[in-house]
Amino acid sequence: MKRFIVMTVGWLMAVNSMGQQALWSADGIISPVINENRTVTFRIYAPAAEKMEVEGDFLSPTMVSTPVGETESAGKAVMTKNSNGVWEYTTPPLVSELYSYTFLNDGLRITDPNNVYQVRDVASVSNIFLMSGQPGDLYSVQEVPHGNVAKVWYPSLTMNMDRRMTVYTPAGYEDSERSYPVLYLLHGAGGDENAWSELGRAAQILDNLIAQGKAEPMIVVMTNGNASQQAAPGEAPNSMKKPALFVPGMMDGRFEQAFTDVVSYVESHYRTQADKAHRAIAGLSMGGFHAMHISALYPDTFDYVGLFSAAIHTDNDSPVYTKFYENLNRQFSTPPQLYWIGIGRTDFLYKDNAAFRSKLDSLNYHYEYTESDGGHIWRNWRIYLTTFVQRLFK
Amino acid sequence: MKRFIVMTVGWLMAVNSMGQQALWSADGIISPVINENRTVTFRIYAPAAEKMEVEGDFLSPTMVSTPVGETESAGKAVMTKNSNGVWEYTTPPLVSELYSYTFLNDGLRITDPNNVYQVRDVASVSNIFLMSGQPGDLYSVQEVPHGNVAKVWYPSLTMNMDRRMTVYTPAGYEDSERSYPVLYLLHGAGGDENAWSELGRAAQILDNLIAQGKAEPMIVVMTNGNASQQAAPGEAPNSMKKPALFVPGMMDGRFEQAFTDVVSYVESHYRTQADKAHRAIAGLSMGGFHAMHISALYPDTFDYVGLFSAAIHTDNDSPVYTKFYENLNRQFSTPPQLYWIGIGRTDFLYKDNAAFRSKLDSLNYHYEYTESDGGHIWRNWRIYLTTFVQRLFK
Repeated sequence: MKRFIVMTVGWLMAVNSMGQQALWSADGIISPVINENRTVTFRIYAPAAEKMEVEGDFLSPTMVSTPVGETESAGKAVMTKNSNGVWEYTTPPLVSELYSYTFLNDGLRITDPNNVYQVRDVASVSNIFLMSGQPGDLYSVQEVPHGNVAKVWYPSLTMNMDRRMTVYTPAGYEDSERSYPVLYLLHGAGGDENAWSELGRAAQILDNLIAQGKAEPMIVVMTNGNASQQAAPGEAPNSMKKPALFVPGMMDGRFEQAFTDVVSYVESHYRTQADKAHRAIAGLSMGGFHAMHISALYPDTFDYVGLFSAAIHTDNDSPVYTKFYENLNRQFSTPPQLYWIGIGRTDFLYKDNAAFRSKLDSLNYHYEYTESDGGHIWRNWRIYLTTFVQRLFK
Repeated sequence: MKRFIVMTVGWLMAVNSMGQQALWSADGIISPVINENRTVTFRIYAPAAEKMEVEGDFLSPTMVSTPVGETESAGKAVMTKNSNGVWEYTTPPLVSELYSYTFLNDGLRITDPNNVYQVRDVASVSNIFLMSGQPGDLYSVQEVPHGNVAKVWYPSLTMNMDRRMTVYTPAGYEDSERSYPVLYLLHGAGGDENAWSELGRAAQILDNLIAQGKAEPMIVVMTNGNASQQAAPGEAPNSMKKPALFVPGMMDGRFEQAFTDVVSYVESHYRTQADKAHRAIAGLSMGGFHAMHISALYPDTFDYVGLFSAAIHTDNDSPVYTKFYENLNRQFSTPPQLYWIGIGRTDFLYKDNAAFRSKLDSLNYHYEYTESDGGHIWRNWRIYLTTFVQRLFK
């Protein structure tokens, strides 16, 4: 036993010596704590701080004026310091959701040093936590069979580069001979091939809906929609720079034109049902724009199209865009099974989407439409994905 | 163009409204900046802070006294505040390496809010950056063909649970018919199936060494060695808790006994060369202990064994451990091609490894041995992996 104790101390030393936060440090704090009454307590040990706030999407937002109108800014709450130098704040009871937050330490935004569960969105890192119930349980890892998630490099012949994508294969894929339908799921501006699996909880949503029999087992292919990028920041050569919301080649037609490389790679490397009835494409924001244009550009390819808070306009004069209504006409000459549009009532793209719907109405192109509360946020995109995938391949 | 500007502002608003760090915030700072003369400048906007330090493994360590002797603690440097409230520190020129660091804001450990490149080690998150040259270039994503990295769930019949592992398949695997050798690569205490790919940069090291012709193309299987866990924290049901250095079932023989489940899953689901000459097993610290015991328990299975800063002792009376020298005797009756031991001169497990080597010497079991500077740290394990994989399957 003495031997084991010495070894244990040695290991603790070793971890400490790596220059990282000591595991047994004085602030041995658990944060956040999800309480039984559905309140959440945040704690941080910072005796020298003058003021500590928590900012999160579970707090009442404040409205902020901007050049294009009012928008919501995440709410803040001031924390209280006890005599031990620990700051604390407890929320009101929260409804089920995947929430994100940061602290403001005398105005400096920091992550919670006691919560390793973090997500990156563009150049920002936030902490997350899950409140159980619906929809939170759908976003959680549950005791169900799990699909695999792979980071796959494929050759884009059109773009003349190797590119990275995320491929979800459903539970059972590895041990069956059957072929599966495919959903192509596209990210928004500032995103990449990691966005839907990390911020969007796509693997958890699919695992859980498939286990409940609410969604068909399907392959989900999450591409990188930035034509100038091989891969997410940090995953391509010389890419460990500060990520940007706008990068070259986001909406210039190249990604749409090269999308055949993705489909042909997937259909030659996975057991797929390679026909229109078993292909879906959806995306959020810029990815909705891409899904709209790709599905029109290859008009007989996708039977299911999902536009989640889609961007509608671009100034680029690529033929992909200038011939859009021509392509759309061909697409709707044999209409897709489902053309699905969803947007939040306070989304800055709401008006553009309303105008696009009027145009579809005037052309007698059938679509389905859902409005939700809130704006241009992941909370909505996770809900749209949940709704959309239950409609596919049935 | 006006349309695009409005849309741009809208997107910026939308990102801001998510309650995360504004992309265009007043502190629009780049940190770290790797300067041409190989110095590195850190910056952080924190006008209210009284003191800001950077702590990192590139600064001269301080020696700290502990119950089991002296150990290194990462060095610190005090940053300087300019009149705009920006704190700054520039290092001396640095040799090539993957470095990690955090800031101390009036003593509170925080990550660099302008650097999204972070790694988790047990319950701590640190920022990282890469200094080019050797070995840093080996740890970087380069313009070479890339292997795929998949998170794979497999059924452990012995443990009666589904478990998660990380599988690296080398570039070319997806487009060939050939079979590949397999390296099983095991993590240490506090780690999981993500440790070698994230902290260990295993995919980058393999990609680069294979591209240079220095390592054979191989599959690398990175398991979870904690018998009580299905998967890494956050990836198993109800696991979004603060990660711990010690979890049940780390060194009780169950992982070793269940290792046949891993090998048989891999050999039935991947194109492998399923013989001793094409199987290797290696691990760091607790994973070195696992590799030592697994290779002895299945004495004719692995032709290459790597013990990186291996733990040697346990008090558990599992037959896996009580019969170790019996098993080792069988293992060395047909000796492995390579039994490789590496450790740092200041590692707290140095003496244990020296005693184990004496024992091997006394038994006339052949092994190779390397010592390096430093202690029980990832810098050494990346070097050991780099050295070891170049020796495999040749």
